[in-house]
Amino acid sequence: MENKLTIYNTLTRKKELFEALNPPHVGMYVCGPTVYGDPHLGHARPAITFDILFRYLQHLGYKVRYVRNITDVGHLEHDADEGEDKIAKKARLEQLEPMEVVQYYTLRYHKAMEMLNVLPPSIEPHASGHIIEQIELVKQILDNGYAYESQGSIYFDVNKYNKDHHYGILSGRNLDDVLNTTRELDGQEEKHNPADFALWKKAQPEHIMRWPSPWSNGFPGWHCECTAMGRKYLGERFDIHGGGMDLIFPHHECEIAQAVASQGHDIVHYWMHNNMITINGQKMGKSLGNFITLNEFFTGQNPNLKQAYSPMTIRFFILMAHYRGTVDFSNDALQAAEKAMSRLMEAYNAIGRIQPSAESSVSVSEFKGKCYEAMDDDLNTPIVISHLFDAAKVINQAVDGNAKLTASDVAELKSLFDTFLFDILGIKAEEGGGSGREEAFGKVVDMLLEQRAIAKANKDWATSDKIRNELTALGFEIKDTKDGATWKLNR
Amino acid sequence: MENKLTIYNTLTRKKELFEALNPPHVGMYVCGPTVYGDPHLGHARPAITFDILFRYLQHLGYKVRYVRNITDVGHLEHDADEGEDKIAKKARLEQLEPMEVVQYYTLRYHKAMEMLNVLPPSIEPHASGHIIEQIELVKQILDNGYAYESQGSIYFDVNKYNKDHHYGILSGRNLDDVLNTTRELDGQEEKHNPADFALWKKAQPEHIMRWPSPWSNGFPGWHCECTAMGRKYLGERFDIHGGGMDLIFPHHECEIAQAVASQGHDIVHYWMHNNMITINGQKMGKSLGNFITLNEFFTGQNPNLKQAYSPMTIRFFILMAHYRGTVDFSNDALQAAEKAMSRLMEAYNAIGRIQPSAESSVSVSEFKGKCYEAMDDDLNTPIVISHLFDAAKVINQAVDGNAKLTASDVAELKSLFDTFLFDILGIKAEEGGGSGREEAFGKVVDMLLEQRAIAKANKDWATSDKIRNELTALGFEIKDTKDGATWKLNR
Repeated sequence: MENKLTIYNTLTRKKELFEALNPPHVGMYVCGPTVYGDPHLGHARPAITFDILFRYLQHLGYKVRYVRNITDVGHLEHDADEGEDKIAKKARLEQLEPMEVVQYYTLRYHKAMEMLNVLPPSIEPHASGHIIEQIELVKQILDNGYAYESQGSIYFDVNKYNKDHHYGILSGRNLDDVLNTTRELDGQEEKHNPADFALWKKAQPEHIMRWPSPWSNGFPGWHCECTAMGRKYLGERFDIHGGGMDLIFPHHECEIAQAVASQGHDIVHYWMHNNMITINGQKMGKSLGNFITLNEFFTGQNPNLKQAYSPMTIRFFILMAHYRGTVDFSNDALQAAEKAMSRLMEAYNAIGRIQPSAESSVSVSEFKGKCYEAMDDDLNTPIVISHLFDAAKVINQAVDGNAKLTASDVAELKSLFDTFLFDILGIKAEEGGGSGREEAFGKVVDMLLEQRAIAKANKDWATSDKIRNELTALGFEIKDTKDGATWKLNR
Repeated sequence: MENKLTIYNTLTRKKELFEALNPPHVGMYVCGPTVYGDPHLGHARPAITFDILFRYLQHLGYKVRYVRNITDVGHLEHDADEGEDKIAKKARLEQLEPMEVVQYYTLRYHKAMEMLNVLPPSIEPHASGHIIEQIELVKQILDNGYAYESQGSIYFDVNKYNKDHHYGILSGRNLDDVLNTTRELDGQEEKHNPADFALWKKAQPEHIMRWPSPWSNGFPGWHCECTAMGRKYLGERFDIHGGGMDLIFPHHECEIAQAVASQGHDIVHYWMHNNMITINGQKMGKSLGNFITLNEFFTGQNPNLKQAYSPMTIRFFILMAHYRGTVDFSNDALQAAEKAMSRLMEAYNAIGRIQPSAESSVSVSEFKGKCYEAMDDDLNTPIVISHLFDAAKVINQAVDGNAKLTASDVAELKSLFDTFLFDILGIKAEEGGGSGREEAFGKVVDMLLEQRAIAKANKDWATSDKIRNELTALGFEIKDTKDGATWKLNR
């Protein structure tokens, strides 16, 4: 297939033409959530970013196997392999089995992603379901001499690795930087070097999530899962690995080291990272009091929110920025996104009202090409959106009779929106809180019945019967009582 | 807590008072789907049956840990440990990775269960995610002398087991029966005895789903997963194990043998089994041409269906039979269920129209007691439903003025429906194809605008302005064009 897609490769620090290793197949791995809390904006942004890539690659004709994992074991509170397992801690606090915590928050995550119209990945492997694969990975690294055992745990030997390879190739850090910024924490004495990271941790007696291994009853280090599962489902070399920028170091740097140390070469061709999200200019964090879950956005139930924002508003807002730029959430910005999206939707809905002319007074043929150009330019969704606004302007002019369009140009505009706004950007029509609509419509029925009552009072039986008969035909059941008419819609 | 719940224990072949091993906690394990095809009635019935039990136990105050597994490896086409793995076969036919098949059909299953208002279980473990636990189980059985290795596979030694214990205790079969009905299939020569079953199978070279083990690269026998995962999440003894009757032999019989052979005693206190479903009196099967998926029921897209049946109609229909009785699906029976359910819903919706009296002319106090009695009698949902019909009759009489009810009796009736119809039976109000409602409501808006046009034509400005202003206040945007008024609902 002809292809002009370029994507920014974090590894080479430049935009590169995307060339699939094994076309038409594309293998893509994205780091999914650690499921110990409600999904928030930090989950939504990578999910939406790589959903766009998933959709666009498929639109271009690739067959994409998209793997996004669920981290349910081994992700400790501190990056330096210390602290409690995040899932286990939540389970302890809530007096649950860790896998009950996993099930609960995985379902919440799935629900939120569905509301955001994020397509499910092709495979969604759980870290706890791939302990054997992780143990095999650790064995290979040990066999190749890049890891050592220490009191039942296995650590990656960063110094040794860095002599033969380049630790820091992705993040641009060098080992001295890493050492200077590594905190000395309790329990680090097991490591030969503070920069070393755990491949397997011996479980403390109170640790519930544990499995047998050649070294100890324990659990895998956090970085192992993605290397092991990516390789299992996408092979020893695959096209794309994505995630948030915050994962570049240590997580993805360590993944590269694990891959090279185990199989002699890196697995991933293109490393892609989305930028972070701030709230009113500040980093989002539970301790900062500005932590907003997706569900709170959808319902408006958070003191930082002036109103509820629909899932599509959140999605559209995220797409109004390029994925490598920062996004700052504020009520003003969200309200602006809401208005902008509804202007596009209104223009789309108005297309049917255009009266086609024999010839067009404006040109619409270049819109699609421009949108493809923007998508091919490292998924530049804000530029795609700006072209859609230009197209919306043409539609509105034509609706108002200030521009002429042929029938085929009208069809072209509809196809433009269908392709880019709906299929590729993944925006969908919302019914704006269904019950609110039902309520408004219900009052319209009351108003119509009031008109019928007035007609009856005026002995205008023709009108009153007509209203009743038409309502009945639509499935309404009307009952006249001494206090007026009541109704019910039987469909 | 006081408790009169009795349940039929397949193991003892009688109804027994339910006594939790560790109150208020209850551990419940139910066999979930093998995810290689779309969910059908055979999936709906056990899911709904044990959803009722899950809901009722929680209603009684128990804290239930409900484990329902996903079988994604090891379930072969034939019970006698032969044939292709069901998932792997589907993956081969569709040229997918087996876990892509698992992901696709697991999501379809979850969606269907959500539509049927089946609550998600507390933990939903995948067989492929618990290979280590299954290997540990096999090791224990080998260590205890109840299994043997043969060409890299491990088989359970049924003869040896039956000398010390009772193989057939659940199904009532004896070993001679089993031997007489076991088919001789290719590859059975590895077994010492045709009744033996696989605990671990060495993988053929073409087999994708394989893991290392002390015996071979291979995969676990189908029966292992439930024993290993049940024990992991619910402990060495737990309260309830459920599933369809078709699983009693060999699956559950083998689970008991594995548990006893590995830990010296059975795990499960109460074994519960739902009966099967027939379609127009016939067994349902792909080869019989009467196979109907749940989605086909919901959409009506199957030549055997005269119409679409909503998820709640399917649920209500299943609950109209006791779970240990057979259920025969036919269009007539489904239509009857649809009507019956809607009579109950209408009665519930009419409760608000009852004018309370100073005293009641009928007694409503015994309804709840009778419903509890029915639920306590081995979850007798059809009897619960019959009591709700009696209550609906009282409601309708009161609405029509043919019976008197005090305000507190009216409240009691509402509480009866809330508790039994909604909370315990899990029926919920349906909006019968939302778009159909929107369409009907939309036409009502058109009708009202027509009334406004008539008012304008009559120069009745007061009416026409009133209608416009009220619509605007509700969020409708009205545009007067030369072809009449158009509208849009902005909410």
